[in-house]
Amino acid sequence: MVIEAVSPRVDAGRFPAKAVVGDPFVVSATVFSHGHDVVRAFVRVRPAGGAAWQRTTMSGLGNDAFRAVVVPEEPGRLEVEVLGEVDELATWRRDASRRVDAGRYDQNDAISGAELLEAVAERLGASGESLGRAGAAALEPARLAAMLRELAGRLAAAQSAPAVAAVLQELVAFDDALSARSPDTAAPAAERFEVAVQRELAACSSWYECFPRSTSPDRSRPGTLRDLIAQLDYVADLGFDLLYLPPIHPIGVTARKGPNNTAAGGPDAVGSPWAIGNSHGGHTAVAPELGTIEDFDALVSEAARRGIEIALDLAFQCSPDHPWVHQHPDWFAHRPDGTIACAENPPKRYEDVYPIDFATADREGLYRELLDVVRFWHGRGVRTFRVDNPHTKPFDFWEWLIAAVHAEDPGVIFLAEAFTRPAVMHRLAKLGFDQSYTYFTWRDTKWELTEYLGELAHGPGAAYFRGNLWPNTPDILAKSLQRGGRPSFVVRLVLAACGSANYGIYGPMFELLFDRPAAPGSEEYLDSEKYEVRHFDLEDPRGIASVIRRLNGARRTHPALRRDASLRFHEIDNDQLICWSKRDPQTGDAVCCVVNLDPHWTQSGFVALDLDALGLSAHEPFVVRDLLDDRAYVWNGSRNFVVLEPGRDNAHVLAIEPLNGPGSP
Amino acid sequence: MVIEAVSPRVDAGRFPAKAVVGDPFVVSATVFSHGHDVVRAFVRVRPAGGAAWQRTTMSGLGNDAFRAVVVPEEPGRLEVEVLGEVDELATWRRDASRRVDAGRYDQNDAISGAELLEAVAERLGASGESLGRAGAAALEPARLAAMLRELAGRLAAAQSAPAVAAVLQELVAFDDALSARSPDTAAPAAERFEVAVQRELAACSSWYECFPRSTSPDRSRPGTLRDLIAQLDYVADLGFDLLYLPPIHPIGVTARKGPNNTAAGGPDAVGSPWAIGNSHGGHTAVAPELGTIEDFDALVSEAARRGIEIALDLAFQCSPDHPWVHQHPDWFAHRPDGTIACAENPPKRYEDVYPIDFATADREGLYRELLDVVRFWHGRGVRTFRVDNPHTKPFDFWEWLIAAVHAEDPGVIFLAEAFTRPAVMHRLAKLGFDQSYTYFTWRDTKWELTEYLGELAHGPGAAYFRGNLWPNTPDILAKSLQRGGRPSFVVRLVLAACGSANYGIYGPMFELLFDRPAAPGSEEYLDSEKYEVRHFDLEDPRGIASVIRRLNGARRTHPALRRDASLRFHEIDNDQLICWSKRDPQTGDAVCCVVNLDPHWTQSGFVALDLDALGLSAHEPFVVRDLLDDRAYVWNGSRNFVVLEPGRDNAHVLAIEPLNGPGSP
Repeated sequence: MVIEAVSPRVDAGRFPAKAVVGDPFVVSATVFSHGHDVVRAFVRVRPAGGAAWQRTTMSGLGNDAFRAVVVPEEPGRLEVEVLGEVDELATWRRDASRRVDAGRYDQNDAISGAELLEAVAERLGASGESLGRAGAAALEPARLAAMLRELAGRLAAAQSAPAVAAVLQELVAFDDALSARSPDTAAPAAERFEVAVQRELAACSSWYECFPRSTSPDRSRPGTLRDLIAQLDYVADLGFDLLYLPPIHPIGVTARKGPNNTAAGGPDAVGSPWAIGNSHGGHTAVAPELGTIEDFDALVSEAARRGIEIALDLAFQCSPDHPWVHQHPDWFAHRPDGTIACAENPPKRYEDVYPIDFATADREGLYRELLDVVRFWHGRGVRTFRVDNPHTKPFDFWEWLIAAVHAEDPGVIFLAEAFTRPAVMHRLAKLGFDQSYTYFTWRDTKWELTEYLGELAHGPGAAYFRGNLWPNTPDILAKSLQRGGRPSFVVRLVLAACGSANYGIYGPMFELLFDRPAAPGSEEYLDSEKYEVRHFDLEDPRGIASVIRRLNGARRTHPALRRDASLRFHEIDNDQLICWSKRDPQTGDAVCCVVNLDPHWTQSGFVALDLDALGLSAHEPFVVRDLLDDRAYVWNGSRNFVVLEPGRDNAHVLAIEPLNGPGSP
Repeated sequence: MVIEAVSPRVDAGRFPAKAVVGDPFVVSATVFSHGHDVVRAFVRVRPAGGAAWQRTTMSGLGNDAFRAVVVPEEPGRLEVEVLGEVDELATWRRDASRRVDAGRYDQNDAISGAELLEAVAERLGASGESLGRAGAAALEPARLAAMLRELAGRLAAAQSAPAVAAVLQELVAFDDALSARSPDTAAPAAERFEVAVQRELAACSSWYECFPRSTSPDRSRPGTLRDLIAQLDYVADLGFDLLYLPPIHPIGVTARKGPNNTAAGGPDAVGSPWAIGNSHGGHTAVAPELGTIEDFDALVSEAARRGIEIALDLAFQCSPDHPWVHQHPDWFAHRPDGTIACAENPPKRYEDVYPIDFATADREGLYRELLDVVRFWHGRGVRTFRVDNPHTKPFDFWEWLIAAVHAEDPGVIFLAEAFTRPAVMHRLAKLGFDQSYTYFTWRDTKWELTEYLGELAHGPGAAYFRGNLWPNTPDILAKSLQRGGRPSFVVRLVLAACGSANYGIYGPMFELLFDRPAAPGSEEYLDSEKYEVRHFDLEDPRGIASVIRRLNGARRTHPALRRDASLRFHEIDNDQLICWSKRDPQTGDAVCCVVNLDPHWTQSGFVALDLDALGLSAHEPFVVRDLLDDRAYVWNGSRNFVVLEPGRDNAHVLAIEPLNGPGSP
């Protein structure tokens, strides 16, 4: 027996594939033997290390391809096995049918068939397993075995082709039961792989990032965690699932950065939150200027009351004032003169940050301490972590850390902030990161977006890499946002929120349309919150909070938008217009988006919809309802006209509805 | 260090990739580490189990991709390893350059660089290895080490950015030597795979199949091996590399088939050569009616004198009269009544053949005997075997047998006659078969041919599956040949001989244009040689021997036709015309074929050549010389007109030549 092309197996089983609780998960394989025998294939699954397997008979698709669907029930590691064996009874039935069709009778052959049938009856009677809920499969195993034995007896006694044919005909009624039976072979051929099952938030999430110190309603002082609690209603009203905070730990005092990343911050500087640690503590402390650990606890529980999870930043690096620098000098690389090297990406230097030396001789102590950091915050209710620059730490560290955390709570979600080469980003996803930042921020044209979003949804990495699309971050004020004003913000938002089930924005900079860079040609924000406290007017009517609210609402009510596997781009005869759709295979819910990538000029064109991808007929008109403004239009067939005028309509997010449904125009 | 996407590794290294002596063989991989360090990658190869590795430094292609070319020197199994390590010296050089470009000087940094350079010099001096033939790489290792040490000293003493920059600048002259040096790491990361290297005949071969008993010049008696020897000049004149003979062993007498596969052959029947074995012997005997083992030896040596290899048929099955049936009854499956089951593919039965039961308890004895069959004929000079129905025997048998034979002579070639499902055919190729029959015989239309020949040349199986294209076989008189007369024979011949480096015909049926099936709708030949003796007039002027001679000549003189990797189809605006080319990357030799798939009507059209694939410029006319009739035409640019009239010209096989070359029109 050969079992090949097992899917979704990542790197020949070296890494687990990814799945989500409740989502049907297709296992496929090529299963065959030499010769012409009929083959049976099965999938069986169990929680990793668990005892009880659950078995499904795979369906044959022709040319030795088999497939089965598994629906994971809880987060955690699943062991999956594809099994294969020759089905001697089915082989005999096929060959005997051909013989009797040709009018041939052969007593030896009838006896062989009777022996095979007898053996199957024997095993069925002994197993006592339940085979199904209808027909012969629903029979008591002992009763079923007796019926098969009776047929075996008639076969052994058959004296003519018609007598054999009659038994073969009666056997058809037992097909379901026979197909559901356990493998006949004691140890069938098997190929194993693992699947990392996550809770749904790993597959569908909207993130809102903000700096707690910029949440003060009082312009004379910085914000605190208590101020952030007061802003939770705002975040909940926008409809986000996650509130992600840059590091909230004590900030180093040595070489503090000043506003706009100036070298010497001076006495008034607040410093970068990523320069972690001072005399008040390190990675498990709350910066005193933000509040107390009790304030943090309150934030977590108040957020939870509003359906929001708090996500923390795991930035494994230290300010020169971090307690570890003194307690564990061997965790840092020393230079020939005995000083510790600051972080550097030549010619850039980060004087306020010491990188941790993961090649330290005290690897064990270091790894344990870092795991304890995650455990500490997990113990306070945090189940989602955005990981800062994971690609600058060893791969085996992350694989170990994530496995250790998932062993305690498989629902903890890790988002990799690795803006680096594709192979490295994919490696991090394979070794355990649940989500990853992407190149979306720099993909602007129709061709780039079609190619890249298509790759994320359908490329070879789709089995393990979940992209999270961010139009902006504190480090990246995208060029497109600098150039296109409000229309660009709306366009990038729709692309992210409807092009991917996972997306996030860095606010309030985003919804308030901040678009001034630190310098011409730079992607850094002017007066970046990384180095100073900002104050925002969240009520500013020029902002796009209402669009965000609409999109997050659409994501909640339209299952089509909650997964990426069905993503499909549709032809549209204008390079400034991009059109894509998603469709939920369970409910049939479908959403079709059209976006004007040109922030300055009205663009129009004819879209050529792939009606099959939308579950539509070519012969019946249908309604498209814009989820951004509730306007509805009747469309007809594949070819439909769209015009989008920047400032008025930058995008359509169209729910597909039947023509005579409730509220049709 | 991570080494991923190693190519060409088959099934994660479970099977060897295939290569040919003298053919450049590209090894590629994605090699990276965490962080931003510079990575070096190497390929090293050695004969499997051998001691001495040969190392090549891989070239970086960007985005962590690396590549190197290996040229295997002899047949056999090669071990290949891709190695990777962080190049600390190169990392330091890159970072130090950026620092000095920014005008920064840092004594710690200069000292670190000096230490790295010193360490490399130390290893180079100790290794004594030769690094290259030019520049610093050609220096004596000790001299090179001394020069690097001198630079290290200057670096350690440098007191300014310009002083460091000067050393960095001088190091550039050592780039080749540094890149060629051994890995710095004692045990760099490594990924291994194997490559099965064959002699060139495995990659490029033309086969002629014929029945020795049909070679008699005297119509009153069957042919013998001596008659076949007399026909060797004919085969050599046609230009074939291999003469393949159906089984030449004693033929069973029980249930002999009569002409046209009638059930009872009667006393005059000659029987099917595939019903192997009678009282005169089995798989290691020559049928007395064909001659003696000495005649066979003479055939092998006379063929060799003409540059022709004899290929034998390995049909591991027995007539009921085979010596094994009596000596080893346990090698055959018995039915409930104690009789042995004849071969069967219901409803078809082969009463004259007993299949061997590979599940016998005496597996060891059986396997050894079958290996001894191969050894016997190999001992008499046979190095190529066409294997009958390998897919009906266990995969592990073939993997074992082929490995055992290749351990003694890695140049033995096995052609799999497995007309079955794709997964099974690919498995046989992976486990060791050097060539495989294909679906070509049933691929007729332009779309089918484009898709299938493209798959063979470039599909995922190209690393291990070498298709051998046959327009006909004794079992398959293709429908296209039955319908199209002479033009169809020419067309199928050109498609096979120029579409694939490996091809064969079953003659003289083919070149004499036999096209009558046993029955309407059947692919069996009427009066098939499988069941009776035939006599042919090889001088018949209506045949297409002259076309075969031309094509085999073209295959010998044009390296473009000797490999398939460069196969490229070109657009042509007529669905009855198909156009493809091949180009030899070493010599630049290019051949472009245009075939009229319509055997009845003249077809014309404009071809749109991919000039890049042919190594041509868009701005210079070129000559195309038809290798079938020596006519030459001047073509210009991509778009050129072609007209093909069945009966006159069925195909062009155009060598591309420069306009003012010797003999230009």
